[in-house]
Amino acid sequence: MYKGKARAHTNIALIKYWGKADKEFIIPMNNSLSLTLDAFYTETMVTFSETFTQDTFYLDGARQDEKNTKKVSQFLDLVRSLAQKDLFATVESQNFVPTAAGLASSASGLSALAGACNAALELNLSDQDLSRLARRGSGSACRSIYGGFVEWEKGQDDASSFAKVVPSDQWEDDLAMIFILINDQQKDVSSRDGMERTVETSVFYDGWLKTSPIDLQTAKEAIAEKDFEKLGTVTEANGLKMHGTTLGATPPFTYWSPESLTAMNRVREIRQMGLPCYFTMDAGPNVKVLCQKKDVKQILEQLEQSFNKEQLTCAFSGPGLEYLETDVTA
Amino acid sequence: MYKGKARAHTNIALIKYWGKADKEFIIPMNNSLSLTLDAFYTETMVTFSETFTQDTFYLDGARQDEKNTKKVSQFLDLVRSLAQKDLFATVESQNFVPTAAGLASSASGLSALAGACNAALELNLSDQDLSRLARRGSGSACRSIYGGFVEWEKGQDDASSFAKVVPSDQWEDDLAMIFILINDQQKDVSSRDGMERTVETSVFYDGWLKTSPIDLQTAKEAIAEKDFEKLGTVTEANGLKMHGTTLGATPPFTYWSPESLTAMNRVREIRQMGLPCYFTMDAGPNVKVLCQKKDVKQILEQLEQSFNKEQLTCAFSGPGLEYLETDVTA
Repeated sequence: MYKGKARAHTNIALIKYWGKADKEFIIPMNNSLSLTLDAFYTETMVTFSETFTQDTFYLDGARQDEKNTKKVSQFLDLVRSLAQKDLFATVESQNFVPTAAGLASSASGLSALAGACNAALELNLSDQDLSRLARRGSGSACRSIYGGFVEWEKGQDDASSFAKVVPSDQWEDDLAMIFILINDQQKDVSSRDGMERTVETSVFYDGWLKTSPIDLQTAKEAIAEKDFEKLGTVTEANGLKMHGTTLGATPPFTYWSPESLTAMNRVREIRQMGLPCYFTMDAGPNVKVLCQKKDVKQILEQLEQSFNKEQLTCAFSGPGLEYLETDVTA
Repeated sequence: MYKGKARAHTNIALIKYWGKADKEFIIPMNNSLSLTLDAFYTETMVTFSETFTQDTFYLDGARQDEKNTKKVSQFLDLVRSLAQKDLFATVESQNFVPTAAGLASSASGLSALAGACNAALELNLSDQDLSRLARRGSGSACRSIYGGFVEWEKGQDDASSFAKVVPSDQWEDDLAMIFILINDQQKDVSSRDGMERTVETSVFYDGWLKTSPIDLQTAKEAIAEKDFEKLGTVTEANGLKMHGTTLGATPPFTYWSPESLTAMNRVREIRQMGLPCYFTMDAGPNVKVLCQKKDVKQILEQLEQSFNKEQLTCAFSGPGLEYLETDVTA
C-alpha cells in the first residue's frame, strides 16, 4: 500500500494559454504567465494497492462515474509508467472553492494529484519534472506547482515544456484578485473545445500567436519594475485579445454573458474613479479583477453596488504545491 | 437660386465596411455589401443662391452649430467644384427614424444631400458618379444611392470606388430586418475613430482583411442562390469578425453593451427554435436581425418576450435615391 497526499492552489493566467501545439503531450502554442491564488485549492490523497482491482475516484466524497474516473486513470497510467509499478489506485479529492460556480479548476486538481502520486510512490520528482507531469493531466496545472508569478515555457516537446517561478521580490504579496461569479444558464463551449476550434479555424489566431510573446515580455517587465498599471493594462488587453480570437472562429462563439460585460464595464468605471484595477476572463463567464491589496476594500464596496456579495470572492497570492500528512481516517 | 430635393434610405451592411485605405477620399480597405431599408430615411432640400453669405444647415427644423455645418460645407465645396458655381447654400434635412436612438445614419443623410445637389445644380450625374460623390461625404452613403442588395467596390482611387446593385431577382422583397434598439448610457467610440484605431493597431486586422473578400463572395453566392441560411450565416459571422477586431486594438474596446449580448443570445435561441434569423451589429450597441418576411410576426413575438415594443422596429427592402418636388413652403 502506497499513500500520498498533497494540496495545490489554482492559478489565473494574466497572459493566457490559448491553443495546443501537441494535443497528446499538451505542448502549448505560446508561453503563459499566471498568479497562484490562496482562495481556491484542491487536496488530494492517492492510495495505490495490490489489493485494488480497478481505479476509483472520489470527488468531494462522491464516487465519480466511469467518464470522470477514466480521465484520472489515464493520468495514473503516466505515473505507473514512471514508477514502473502496475497498481490500481483510489483517488480522494476535495475541492475548496466558495461556491460551485465553475471555479473548481482542473489546474489545482491535476497539480494536487501529481503531487500526491509523487509522494505515494516516492518518485522524488524535481519541481520541474512535477510540472511536466501535471501538464500531462491539464495544461495549466503545470503552473500550480509554484506559488506567486509563474511562467509556463512552451518548449517544444515533453522534456522542455514546463513552468517556473518568475522572480518578483515577493511583489505578489501586494496584489489581490477579486472573482466576480457570473451565473449563466447557457451551455458553454468547453475550454478544450474552444481552444481547438480557435486554433483550427480562427482568422485571428495568427494575430494572437504573433503578439502574445510581446504581451508576455511586457508582463515580465512590469513584474520586474513592480509597475502595477503596466501589468494590469497588459493583462486586460491580453485577455480581451484571447476572447477576440473566438469571434473569428468558424462558427464564431463567445464565453461572455451579458453580466460579464456589466462586470467589465464596472471595472473600467472604478478604474476611472482612480482605483487601479483590471479585468481578465477565462473560458467561461466569470470576471477576475486584478488589483492591489491596499485597494481591495474600496473596490469591493464599488462592486457590491452592482453584484451580490455572494458573487464576490477576494483572493491573494497563494503558495505552490504542499505535501500533507496522509490521514488514515480520510 | 437653384433648388433640389431628394430622399435616400439608410442601408445596413451584411458584409461590413471596416477601415479606410485613404481617409481624404474615403477609399475603403475592403468591399462591402448592404441591404437598403425602407424604415429609415432622410429627405433633404438644398438651395444655392447668390444672395446667401454663408452655408446654413437645418436638421429636423433646428439650425445646426458651426461644427455640424462645417461638415456639410465641406461636402458642398465638392459639389461647388463639380458645378463650377461658387454659391453658398441652405440645406434643410429631415431624418425619418422611429426614435432618436442613434439610427439617424449618415448613410441616408449624405446620400440624400448628394441627390439634392445633383438636382439643384443640374449636374446630371450618373448613378455611379452620384455614388462616388456621396462616398466623399460618408463612406457607406455611396451604397444608399441604390435599393435592395448593393456592393461597394473598393476600387483604388476616387474614380474607381463606388457602389452598384447586386443582381438578386428581387429576392430582397422576401427579406426583412428587425432593429433592436439598445439604450446605452456609455459614451461610444465613434465609427470613424473605432475604424481608425482598428486599422492602425489591431493585431486582428490582417485576419479581417484576408477573409472579408471570402465572406463577400459567399454572400453574393447566397443571393444568387436565394439561400437564406447561407446569407444569414455569413452575415452573422462577418459582423462578429468585425467586432472581434476591436478586441485586438490598442487600447482594446467594444461596441457591445450587456443588452447587445442578451439580444444576440435571443436571436440564437429563436434560430434554434426553428425560425431562421441572424444578427449583425455596427459601430454601436444596437442589434439588427436579418430574417425572412414570412417569419417576421413569429420572430417579433419572441423578441417581445425580452424587449419592449418600443425597442423593436421592423424594416423591409427599401428603394434607392428618389428625387422629390421642391416644396417652396418647406
